[in-house]
Amino acid sequence: MFKKIFRKLKRRFAPASVDSVSMALAVEMLCAPSTLMQLSPHDARVVARYMHPMQVSEGTVFIREGDTRNTGFMVLILAGEVTVESIVVSRVSPITVTVLGPGSMHGDLGLIDGLPRSASCTASSDLHCLVLTRAGISNLLEDNPQVCAKLMMAIAIRIGDRLRDNTEKLKKYVMLMKAMQQEIDHLLPS
Amino acid sequence: MFKKIFRKLKRRFAPASVDSVSMALAVEMLCAPSTLMQLSPHDARVVARYMHPMQVSEGTVFIREGDTRNTGFMVLILAGEVTVESIVVSRVSPITVTVLGPGSMHGDLGLIDGLPRSASCTASSDLHCLVLTRAGISNLLEDNPQVCAKLMMAIAIRIGDRLRDNTEKLKKYVMLMKAMQQEIDHLLPS
Repeated sequence: MFKKIFRKLKRRFAPASVDSVSMALAVEMLCAPSTLMQLSPHDARVVARYMHPMQVSEGTVFIREGDTRNTGFMVLILAGEVTVESIVVSRVSPITVTVLGPGSMHGDLGLIDGLPRSASCTASSDLHCLVLTRAGISNLLEDNPQVCAKLMMAIAIRIGDRLRDNTEKLKKYVMLMKAMQQEIDHLLPS
Repeated sequence: MFKKIFRKLKRRFAPASVDSVSMALAVEMLCAPSTLMQLSPHDARVVARYMHPMQVSEGTVFIREGDTRNTGFMVLILAGEVTVESIVVSRVSPITVTVLGPGSMHGDLGLIDGLPRSASCTASSDLHCLVLTRAGISNLLEDNPQVCAKLMMAIAIRIGDRLRDNTEKLKKYVMLMKAMQQEIDHLLPS
């Protein structure tokens, strides 16, 4: 019981530094191909030192599509699941893009370009995450520019991966739309 | 006339370093919002020192869609025009994506992720360009990691810009396809 209370107190009064379990988890995740970061363990350890822990309760929207103000951070999920949603042009109902678990990262695009958030992220369960802010990146650039450069390259590759994915989808959609147009032309009375 | 011959000789025997006019042009372009690089003049000057000049004759395809081997470079156009083309899924006829002039950059995605080229770039006129190779970036990282980090962030922002653009297009296409499907359903005999 003392342990539990101590843990609670520690959580309440400790500075927002990353505990050793979270650190080990973060390093493992930042090196894993699944996060597409693929930093070396050394570089991942350096990056994790510039992140701070964050707890998110189930149901909380921690990144909101279109938000122009809260763009200065990205989130690495250590435990829990996130639903990523986007509202299509009509602005009526959001479509679920994907559900992502531990090791997933969110908000890297907004973090680097500061433009409105491109999708919403909701905690589908209680989340334990690490946050990297623009100030954190700025400090990393100052203290350890080599690792910062590698992190930036890793982020560029992650974003590039999504770009390639979207480009493939676009190409398929163009073909599909052509086929649909032909069907409409065929069905229309001449 | 001597000047002309000297210039020719110089061009033939000089090491592949960037002349002062190209350097000034490159710095201006790397700082311009149109290239989306927006480096500071100082950082742009540092980056340009790691680039080397390249001449491309009209009609030459200098980046080929799907190419998996020649991915280790990106090109900054100092003078001339480039046609960017992509082949859609059917693999029949390429569609022209865009025509870009001085200040445009090509090949940054392949440079950082080493995956197959996502579009083809053809010189629509004789080109005068500067090339940044993966080896150049590696040297820049070694010599000046701060500038390298800023360059990587600038590239990530460029790629992110295209991702945002594509995402918007995808959303519109999804809506269009829904409307087309409704029209088909309406036209089909029940």
